[in-house]
Amino acid sequence: MTRFAFAIAARDGAARSGTICMRRGDIRTPAFMPVGTAATVKAMKPEAVAASGADILLGNTYHLMLRPGAERVARLGGLHRFMNWDRPILTDSGGYQVMSLGDLTRKTEEGVRFKSHLDGSAHMLTPERSMEVQRLLGADIVMAFDECTPFPATEQQAADSMERSMRWAARSRVGFDCGEAHAERAALFGIQQGSMFERLRQRSTNALLEIGFDGYAIGGLAVGEGHDAMCGVLDYATSMLPADRPRYLMGVGKPDDLVEAVRRGIDMFDCVLPTRSGRTGQAFTADGPINIRNARFAEDREPLEPGCECPTCAHYSRGYVHHLVRAGEILGAMLMTEHNLCFYQRLLQGLRDAIREQRFDAHAAAFLDRYRRGSKA
Amino acid sequence: MTRFAFAIAARDGAARSGTICMRRGDIRTPAFMPVGTAATVKAMKPEAVAASGADILLGNTYHLMLRPGAERVARLGGLHRFMNWDRPILTDSGGYQVMSLGDLTRKTEEGVRFKSHLDGSAHMLTPERSMEVQRLLGADIVMAFDECTPFPATEQQAADSMERSMRWAARSRVGFDCGEAHAERAALFGIQQGSMFERLRQRSTNALLEIGFDGYAIGGLAVGEGHDAMCGVLDYATSMLPADRPRYLMGVGKPDDLVEAVRRGIDMFDCVLPTRSGRTGQAFTADGPINIRNARFAEDREPLEPGCECPTCAHYSRGYVHHLVRAGEILGAMLMTEHNLCFYQRLLQGLRDAIREQRFDAHAAAFLDRYRRGSKA
Repeated sequence: MTRFAFAIAARDGAARSGTICMRRGDIRTPAFMPVGTAATVKAMKPEAVAASGADILLGNTYHLMLRPGAERVARLGGLHRFMNWDRPILTDSGGYQVMSLGDLTRKTEEGVRFKSHLDGSAHMLTPERSMEVQRLLGADIVMAFDECTPFPATEQQAADSMERSMRWAARSRVGFDCGEAHAERAALFGIQQGSMFERLRQRSTNALLEIGFDGYAIGGLAVGEGHDAMCGVLDYATSMLPADRPRYLMGVGKPDDLVEAVRRGIDMFDCVLPTRSGRTGQAFTADGPINIRNARFAEDREPLEPGCECPTCAHYSRGYVHHLVRAGEILGAMLMTEHNLCFYQRLLQGLRDAIREQRFDAHAAAFLDRYRRGSKA
Repeated sequence: MTRFAFAIAARDGAARSGTICMRRGDIRTPAFMPVGTAATVKAMKPEAVAASGADILLGNTYHLMLRPGAERVARLGGLHRFMNWDRPILTDSGGYQVMSLGDLTRKTEEGVRFKSHLDGSAHMLTPERSMEVQRLLGADIVMAFDECTPFPATEQQAADSMERSMRWAARSRVGFDCGEAHAERAALFGIQQGSMFERLRQRSTNALLEIGFDGYAIGGLAVGEGHDAMCGVLDYATSMLPADRPRYLMGVGKPDDLVEAVRRGIDMFDCVLPTRSGRTGQAFTADGPINIRNARFAEDREPLEPGCECPTCAHYSRGYVHHLVRAGEILGAMLMTEHNLCFYQRLLQGLRDAIREQRFDAHAAAFLDRYRRGSKA
């Protein structure tokens, strides 16, 4: 069985479409990974996540190490068996969430000491421990432990943060390789940092390439810089990364973010937006997002998105979903989330098809024009 | 098409098993109806409710008339289309919930004036309005509007309440029949009241029989009287009702309640217990209920109920469900509810099989012995 291979089947400009082959299954790229924070894609059964077209999920190291605990998941047979998902899983390193959610007590070269946001218990995350946790979970794609540089940052702050992340990346590589049995089956990705500074992104890339990884992520974006600034960084940051390795833009994003990132050569995404929006009443459509709680949908017989073939749109009206969401019914979150995940997968499938048919620019222009016009309406 | 027919295929003692035939499908009896309060069986997709073995759902007139409103449901094509359930639906009359949930402002011979528990808006429920609401919803089985006599009640209080319910039953019959197009497709059930008093139950039955209904319900039980007192009433109250009509014990109940009621000749049940328990962490098993939040399940690799073939037990461990429920994950409510509904339907299927095979007493004894022994453990 292939541990990890990436085959690019087509290119259109900088955009590419291909397949990542792993033991647990193939991942069609560009790929969108739904987020399964606490060993569940919220409000979804895994078979419905798979049916939406997801080839791979993301799991959160920070959440899982605190509850139910990585050792416990390992004793219960690993994350795949625990949550009944047999396709690939990518786990993040915990670095981002420990800094945004944890109560930091000490950040040193060694790692991060913090208190759980759940019960105040004391924990330590280091590159070595992050690798161990991701190994215990049984991740197929492991992310190097890094620091997501806060935004905005001065060039000096960004450089210091990035340099530490690169030292942690080297320790992650060693830590990952030490888990031999797991390393034979899993892949390790490094994460480029450098905030909004091109020369830092280049230095970060050089450091990562020297260590060597199966794939490369772009970190430190989608942190408040806005769509245009993000595209500005992607203009140079993506092409620095090796062309023959998957490029993963972490934590992104909105539909138009995805289109612009794919245009610049990104292969993988994760974001809580479709799932979280599903629980708060925002449905994505080709004509922009709609808030289903709006009174104008109360007697609307149309599906969430006319023409959509997802299970929600096949069977339920906006009027019904409006009622469920307003009434706080669990089924409202279930139906909305399922539609949104299907919307995202359909968006990615459209991008993949367009790349393979050499019509990416026209497809992207048509999508963005309709989506943005609808968003303003 | 048959509007309404009830065929008893087998009897074993007072217990009976048969089929209610209606336009939208057959209902195997004894039947358990999951409760779809607000046009959704909470945390369940309707196809999963059907797959659990439910032939019919219960909808709540009180909840639906307040939100989204009966007229709105009618404009959206009726309750079946609204909630994507094409099998029969029974709606209650609203009488029970208006008195337990509504802010009563005036109760007269005419009906009940109350304020919505949702927004304080003023409403009136009368036998005529209850029939209209149930017609607007498009119910297959309509319940007469009555008063669920509070417990405990003196014989005089119970008599006064029952007599009013019987006058309301007569007005319900007229109101139902006035909706001609609906009355040609739907069935109307009367509700026996009389609290714990045999002679009142008999007088109530006589009044109902004089009016004439498609089926007969027993109301005013499961209101705090306890299992033994309920069985004591059922000992006489069930056999008063016509043998050739379905007998429906409203709002009941626990697994052992169902077994004892079937033993006495009850054909239909509804209860929120399996769904509500599913959301609070109680799973039903043949060895009694378990609270999945209990720490002893944290690393339990067994399914909720070993041997159960429901979708939850087929794919998930107690350890996983424990984690989900503890973490407040929606999927926890989904998996627990699905198991509990499957448990109830399997319980009813077991009773139906035992009746048809003339081994009800042995089956009931074995079930109750194991269930009660497990409950004490």
